[in-house]
Amino acid sequence: MSTEKIPYKIYLSENELPTAWYNMRADMKKKPAPLLNPGTHQPMTAQELGGVFCEELVKQELDNDTRFFEIPTEIRDFYKMYRPSPLVRAYCLEEKLKTPAKIYYKFEGNNTSGSHKLNSAIAQAYYAKKQGLKGVTTETGAGQWGTALSMACAYLGLDCKVFMVKVSYEQKPFRREVMRTYGASVTPSPSTETEVGRRILAAHPGTTGSLGCAISEAVEVAVSTEGYRYVLGSVLNQVLLHQSVIGLETKAALDKYGIKADMIIGCAGGGSNLGGLIAPFMGEKLRGEADYEMIAVEPASCPSFTRGVYAYDFCDTGMVCPLAKMYTLGSDFIPAPNHAGGLRYHGMSSTLSELYDQGLMTARSVPQTDVFEAAETFARVEGILPAPESSHAIKVAMDEAIKCRETGEEKTIVFGLTGTGYFDLVAYQKFNDGLMDDYIPTDEELAAARAKLPKVD
Amino acid sequence: MSTEKIPYKIYLSENELPTAWYNMRADMKKKPAPLLNPGTHQPMTAQELGGVFCEELVKQELDNDTRFFEIPTEIRDFYKMYRPSPLVRAYCLEEKLKTPAKIYYKFEGNNTSGSHKLNSAIAQAYYAKKQGLKGVTTETGAGQWGTALSMACAYLGLDCKVFMVKVSYEQKPFRREVMRTYGASVTPSPSTETEVGRRILAAHPGTTGSLGCAISEAVEVAVSTEGYRYVLGSVLNQVLLHQSVIGLETKAALDKYGIKADMIIGCAGGGSNLGGLIAPFMGEKLRGEADYEMIAVEPASCPSFTRGVYAYDFCDTGMVCPLAKMYTLGSDFIPAPNHAGGLRYHGMSSTLSELYDQGLMTARSVPQTDVFEAAETFARVEGILPAPESSHAIKVAMDEAIKCRETGEEKTIVFGLTGTGYFDLVAYQKFNDGLMDDYIPTDEELAAARAKLPKVD
Repeated sequence: MSTEKIPYKIYLSENELPTAWYNMRADMKKKPAPLLNPGTHQPMTAQELGGVFCEELVKQELDNDTRFFEIPTEIRDFYKMYRPSPLVRAYCLEEKLKTPAKIYYKFEGNNTSGSHKLNSAIAQAYYAKKQGLKGVTTETGAGQWGTALSMACAYLGLDCKVFMVKVSYEQKPFRREVMRTYGASVTPSPSTETEVGRRILAAHPGTTGSLGCAISEAVEVAVSTEGYRYVLGSVLNQVLLHQSVIGLETKAALDKYGIKADMIIGCAGGGSNLGGLIAPFMGEKLRGEADYEMIAVEPASCPSFTRGVYAYDFCDTGMVCPLAKMYTLGSDFIPAPNHAGGLRYHGMSSTLSELYDQGLMTARSVPQTDVFEAAETFARVEGILPAPESSHAIKVAMDEAIKCRETGEEKTIVFGLTGTGYFDLVAYQKFNDGLMDDYIPTDEELAAARAKLPKVD
Repeated sequence: MSTEKIPYKIYLSENELPTAWYNMRADMKKKPAPLLNPGTHQPMTAQELGGVFCEELVKQELDNDTRFFEIPTEIRDFYKMYRPSPLVRAYCLEEKLKTPAKIYYKFEGNNTSGSHKLNSAIAQAYYAKKQGLKGVTTETGAGQWGTALSMACAYLGLDCKVFMVKVSYEQKPFRREVMRTYGASVTPSPSTETEVGRRILAAHPGTTGSLGCAISEAVEVAVSTEGYRYVLGSVLNQVLLHQSVIGLETKAALDKYGIKADMIIGCAGGGSNLGGLIAPFMGEKLRGEADYEMIAVEPASCPSFTRGVYAYDFCDTGMVCPLAKMYTLGSDFIPAPNHAGGLRYHGMSSTLSELYDQGLMTARSVPQTDVFEAAETFARVEGILPAPESSHAIKVAMDEAIKCRETGEEKTIVFGLTGTGYFDLVAYQKFNDGLMDDYIPTDEELAAARAKLPKVD
């Protein structure tokens, strides 16, 4: 334990970069429910998954027992271009809030993809390359994941084919251009390049697309093209595994200064960032070595944890993917336009869902305007313009710090700042112009979507 | 000297942050020529400058003798939010180029303003605050400087009034929204808020504005409003002084690993980044302690060093500012549309101009498409999407590294990566679509602009 003043930014050195990812599932007594074949309702086998995903990633997906997976040297070398990422002490935010709480955030935005997505993109691209594949396909909405994957593929010399929801392709051309600069082919979805795309276009000629449709197109191309596989940026166990690098670095940085966190807060869409951030802390909690309060923050417009049910559901709206048991609003639920595009997912990682169901973590939902108010305050005092997604965590961290001001408690609050908002200025403009509104789904809407959940015994 | 492998990123610790800025002029035997009053052609006095600029900044502007200016604690605390910035070893670029050269870049883009501009913005805002002023005014084109100043003012609770060239205000709304999020007022220029703006609007009703006009409006508001002063993001001696933090950190990081640079390369518009980067190295050269090759890189479309003349000229197209002796194309020269907005300045810092005139540094101009090709290569192997401005330095660093491949020399090349290109995707799109062209001014054009230089004895 160091006795010097905690710096503004705690940087681990490159040789302190984690050498292995940590698999939370290994320490869970009750494991997350398995993925099911949508036709037979039997657990998906490695062989079935292998047609869609790379072999090594299928192993990681299905392995509930191995505690640590070594990070290959090639991936660690790539990580060194932007990791270890800083753990920042939010001195200025503390002063602004006049709180006795100590606030830290793990900042994952200092790379061109602008978010933590790169941590898993490079891992998935690496295993595809290692398997001798020619390329990978994926879908992207706002573009963070597509950008991250394009960067990883450019580095490894792998083809990258991205299906981008048409409305984003046209209205948000900038992330599309980043992907193209990294050599990816970016196709607006639905497209005429796939069977499913043509079918959808015939049925709905004027459609601007959806994430569900883009997933279906990306999967179709992957399974029907020699040497290609499909990759996904969130929800899956493998993605949480790769993202554990966030939590491992966070814990190492805290340990270095002898700091014990009381509370860990992260935004949650599909759960990749939160699952990665809390991983080693949850491990200690599962093993009974330490206790932490862990809070998932989701948008009030898409409240899977706080208003969803724990049930088997389709992962995509096109219903081509396996069934996953998760907290879900129903794959038929269409989230209202919300600027935190990365949090507009109807379900939640199976692993996090199981941990939440066991009462090992809690969740809160927050309305959009409150989130942007917190984002603005944060930007002004801490300098960084945060992504709308990340700002959900900021909002609850600030709420907790303000509670500490009232109670006098000197809690140590750690939150995940997943990324920057440089490509979200349309949303900030709406907020600056006072035109942002909050949409909270009604009980009736949620009940209607729930009624369409698949029946699984 | 450490014998361990040089890491990908050399991070100094916060207590290694420089405690004083270094003033190159103190070590110059022949000093840069003084600013002249545009009416009398006599050197500007502190009193004259004090009507426009803050007192402390006027002192820094005029002081050719003091070698070090202590960095106030408040500014150092702000610096700690994003500094020390990393000095990156470009291992992946070296491998890509198969060069024996060792390439390093000082990366200034890891902050929300996206560039090095923040280093001087916080200094200028701090002295304004310390003088008890209410606010500052400035102009911005593409918006980097305006964003940086907005951030600094938000942090200190100072009013910030930005005149933004109308065409940028309308066509590039994103940086405008960043400024608004930081609480700045952003006015499209020309505006009806100033005398000069109204005059220009009356004469040219449909004008989309120019930097020269925006400067004039910002200066008018500063001198006519109680408690306001004008601030500027480049060209001036004070700005180079503040930016010396870049070079001081670079030198400290190199020294820490016992590395001796052979060559230092930076892009040059007004000269703020280059002047800061080379400062301590130039100091050693001026004092005869060491030698370095130093190269300014400018766009072929705006070649102040390589095709300009060394003469007194107006700093702005509106001709309201003092005259400066500098390498210039003439304040009447209108650079062709070039996506490196930050390099579209007709002149060059007086200090750098004098050093260049003395043969202490060299300059090269590069065409735009070559610059974007270099940018794309760099982005793909090093991860970071560079600003078009910074990519000028990348281009020449790559050229030099390729020369080393041919000669077998193991030169150590250091270049300045001033910022990120996240707000320059329109330019990248043009490049990706093969629609980018190069404009190189003709000798006749340059002669016509030169003919309008002011006559100074």
